Amino acid sequence: MSQEINLKQTAELLQKKDDFAVICHASPDGDTLGGVYALCGALQKMQKRAKVVLPDAASTRFNYLKDAAVPQEFDEKFTITVDVADSVLLGSSEKDYKDRISLCIDHHVSNTRYADNLLLDSDAAAACEVVYMLIKELSELHGKDIMTKEIAACLYTGISTDTGCFRFSNTTANTHRITAELMEYSFDCAGLNYLLFDMRTKERVELERQALEGIEFAFDGKCAVITLTKEMLDNADDEDVNAIGSLPRQIDGVEAGVTFKERKKDEWKVSIRTKNYIDARQICAQFGGGGHQRAAGCRIKGSLSECKERLLKVLGLSIR
Amino acid sequence: MSQEINLKQTAELLQKKDDFAVICHASPDGDTLGGVYALCGALQKMQKRAKVVLPDAASTRFNYLKDAAVPQEFDEKFTITVDVADSVLLGSSEKDYKDRISLCIDHHVSNTRYADNLLLDSDAAAACEVVYMLIKELSELHGKDIMTKEIAACLYTGISTDTGCFRFSNTTANTHRITAELMEYSFDCAGLNYLLFDMRTKERVELERQALEGIEFAFDGKCAVITLTKEMLDNADDEDVNAIGSLPRQIDGVEAGVTFKERKKDEWKVSIRTKNYIDARQICAQFGGGGHQRAAGCRIKGSLSECKERLLKVLGLSIR
Repeated sequence: MSQEINLKQTAELLQKKDDFAVICHASPDGDTLGGVYALCGALQKMQKRAKVVLPDAASTRFNYLKDAAVPQEFDEKFTITVDVADSVLLGSSEKDYKDRISLCIDHHVSNTRYADNLLLDSDAAAACEVVYMLIKELSELHGKDIMTKEIAACLYTGISTDTGCFRFSNTTANTHRITAELMEYSFDCAGLNYLLFDMRTKERVELERQALEGIEFAFDGKCAVITLTKEMLDNADDEDVNAIGSLPRQIDGVEAGVTFKERKKDEWKVSIRTKNYIDARQICAQFGGGGHQRAAGCRIKGSLSECKERLLKVLGLSIR
Repeated sequence: MSQEINLKQTAELLQKKDDFAVICHASPDGDTLGGVYALCGALQKMQKRAKVVLPDAASTRFNYLKDAAVPQEFDEKFTITVDVADSVLLGSSEKDYKDRISLCIDHHVSNTRYADNLLLDSDAAAACEVVYMLIKELSELHGKDIMTKEIAACLYTGISTDTGCFRFSNTTANTHRITAELMEYSFDCAGLNYLLFDMRTKERVELERQALEGIEFAFDGKCAVITLTKEMLDNADDEDVNAIGSLPRQIDGVEAGVTFKERKKDEWKVSIRTKNYIDARQICAQFGGGGHQRAAGCRIKGSLSECKERLLKVLGLSIR
């Protein structure tokens, strides 16, 4: 049902069509948001009608992305998803759109091929890398450069957030090459970096302080555990909580970083992030959870001390 | 006395010479270390003798840089400094070398032109960008690529550390272009990023916890102050302390982040980092200190509460 097409075919398809809805995934991050606003802006520069569809409100941190495109009202005729590996990830947009996505632009090897046409590059660190290549192709076809400073800022947002500001292992030579080309458009890159990577809310600083206060080590410092109680989580937003979850693994000598988050009385959401050799997914699977090799999660019921003991007992078997 | 030469002239000069000493600045950072090991390795690949001169021991975090060059013993005939803006920054190497530096490779606009020959690019984010361009020129002259995976890792170290992993405003399109070319040499980039940017020692985590515990805000949250007492500093290394100094400014809404470090009883080293409009240098100058517009320091004598009061009184005049 789904047909995989290349950059040139995608550009030719878009040039023939009009009245685009460009759709994000639920709980939108920098990559899906940057990609949809960039593509929407580029299509508008080609004198086409294009609008963004958000299943959830985006964090206000990303407000500047809206500058890349003008809000337009019309009935859509061609639907595009960006960075959406599976139609279930459309969230509240799923019921309206799931069976009528004309084109999906993605970088997940796990893409479920739900769209009529698929432009996929699983070597790309971010969907925004693919959108960048597509906009270059569209510029060529259109006979002039449709990239703007604002579009470049959107694409930079996706690329830099999906790579942890060029730190993660998905970063490639091509990621830096594309970023170099984007920076030629002179958006305020240092300003974005502050907003995306340096700024911490006061609430986050307080949560971090409390988390560090209660940090515990096990197995000669090879495992670090932090605990976030319901009371601590009440004032925190998800982004802050996620950032804190990466803290224990950052500590020198720690192979497994564990975060206990209190969901309700005697129920804990546990996330495990490992560094080099422990299979976090396999450990979480023993408690009915899942995830990736180096980052996985599960739920455990019981008092905090019971839950910790049960988890550490399993984890201990893998510590070398 | 000092003659400014371009990349081609520098490459031609090095090709004619032999028996090189390549020298770092005191308290060596990633850029000076990466640059000297890279250049030393490249000269050795041209079948020349070359050795590294360190005025101070380098942090063990940078041990892997040594893989780029083989230790050699000989009497040097040509001396090169990398990333050394002024000969006083040679530290313990100053007395041996200050008046006989054959070539300085640098990116500081403030370079004091102490060397016989100067290769300067003040648009470069790091001295390692200049060394990279030089090695490319040398490869061309030499008729084969003298770059190796290990040399590429050295240059990446300098570039990524001097730009805060591509976050700071000195990062340019060219910085990313050079990084893309370096990554083609397939060193373990994600591994280096962990070592350089994610890893925190247990001592640092503890220091951070203590610093956050005592954080104070003034002027409606526009100023944040942390205090590091002598007792807290005793177990910490300089790199950790510097990293913590950047914490208060990171907080949302904070224009001026202030760190008080206890030097001895009733004597405090104060560092101020500002975000958008306060001239930190001008404030520190009122206490006999100095620095840059957005990062400056001074010493204040008296009890902690007196010193804080005096500083905040001056700072308050600039808060908007």
